[in-house]
Amino acid sequence: MHIEIGEMERLDDLHLKGLQIIQNPKMFCFGVDAVLLSDFVKATITDKVLDLGTGNGIVPPLLVKGKYDCAHITGLEIQEANVTMARRSVTLNKLEETIDIVQGDIKEAESLLPLSTYDVVSCNPPYMDSGKGLTNEMTAKTIARHEVLCNLEDVIKAASRLVRVGGRFVMVHRPHRLVDIITLLRTYKLEPKKLRMVHSYAGSEANMVLIEATRGGNPQIRVMPPPLVIYKEKGGVYHDEIYDIYGYDKEI
Amino acid sequence: MHIEIGEMERLDDLHLKGLQIIQNPKMFCFGVDAVLLSDFVKATITDKVLDLGTGNGIVPPLLVKGKYDCAHITGLEIQEANVTMARRSVTLNKLEETIDIVQGDIKEAESLLPLSTYDVVSCNPPYMDSGKGLTNEMTAKTIARHEVLCNLEDVIKAASRLVRVGGRFVMVHRPHRLVDIITLLRTYKLEPKKLRMVHSYAGSEANMVLIEATRGGNPQIRVMPPPLVIYKEKGGVYHDEIYDIYGYDKEI
Repeated sequence: MHIEIGEMERLDDLHLKGLQIIQNPKMFCFGVDAVLLSDFVKATITDKVLDLGTGNGIVPPLLVKGKYDCAHITGLEIQEANVTMARRSVTLNKLEETIDIVQGDIKEAESLLPLSTYDVVSCNPPYMDSGKGLTNEMTAKTIARHEVLCNLEDVIKAASRLVRVGGRFVMVHRPHRLVDIITLLRTYKLEPKKLRMVHSYAGSEANMVLIEATRGGNPQIRVMPPPLVIYKEKGGVYHDEIYDIYGYDKEI
Repeated sequence: MHIEIGEMERLDDLHLKGLQIIQNPKMFCFGVDAVLLSDFVKATITDKVLDLGTGNGIVPPLLVKGKYDCAHITGLEIQEANVTMARRSVTLNKLEETIDIVQGDIKEAESLLPLSTYDVVSCNPPYMDSGKGLTNEMTAKTIARHEVLCNLEDVIKAASRLVRVGGRFVMVHRPHRLVDIITLLRTYKLEPKKLRMVHSYAGSEANMVLIEATRGGNPQIRVMPPPLVIYKEKGGVYHDEIYDIYGYDKEI
């Protein structure tokens, strides 16, 4: 088996059950948010999962092999360079039977994928408003970070159409959008059920939020313990829980 | 000056700037939620405050003397026994010039009090749905704890009418109602701006939430650090921050 690694690309070892991922630093490399999202999903072995905006495809292998053994995951991604990169990582990890990477736009997901089907829909969407002047700058990083190709409502609307009744939508986002997130989720019948705040340091405001919603769920939300803190100290020393969530192989 | 203390009542020393409060254990005694709310208000010396459902009147003296020196506070309370008790506490603390206790229903607050006037509206509302079978049991405790005389929407609607544009509404509530709280606040043009989670223990889910909304504010919310934890250990040993928030006089 020969998998081509492009000149601008690199092959990263996830230090987790032998998984590897091809990434292009000029485009977008996965961060702690994708890892926290994958953990928060709490997928089971019978779950069929859809990952909206899967990027270079970091979430799918974590869910089907790295952290959980969910039955199948489809990754939807609009950027062709990401799609081919993600597909090569799937082949590299020999996960062709459990991961499909589909090229397409979240705004057209309803016509590309089966409706009301998935047990879980996950998403690590662009966090930032498109803002002025950004719409002409369509780099891969801009598309991943800013709402230029899809916004929060597009993501939530697509999730609500594709997840089955009683199924879960799980997302990571920035806390400053929490009111928009919660009101849009309820508008689209995805009732927020679980919330976890993520703080970079013990003394800092939350800078990420993990949220789980159930399609057609009853209105009652839980705020999970303990609020997750990423760093022990300035300089990048992770809290123990972050290592647990990463799930690094012990010998590393 | 003679202040009557009823047979079922007791006089509690707040251990804070000489403040005292008359309470009736058969009715309702203030808890840590009222103290956390009073702290979270962050009132300034020019603020005119309205406390909706002021109960036995614990929040007003904390805001005008105990923790802040806000200019004036009106406490609105429906239960006559609470109103007379709160007024006696005001007299006892010699705060007649800065605290008014008004008897009335939150649902009729718009006709009792001046509209779009208050810099801050605070509320420690009943947390629990009225539920079935409870509506016939109108004890003082039931009224304070259950939504039998007013519900969350009544409170938020009244606050939105009475607070000035740009003024703040501050509330303590249970986290499981967070989605209702946030959607109702936005519906009534009180944009949620600040959120703080309160956990009883470091390892437990949040069991209180403090939320601040600004009338006509821009949509951007902050999740405050660090998540507040009440007890150090089972058995009621408070975390240091709780003592700081109480603001006990040092000699106690």
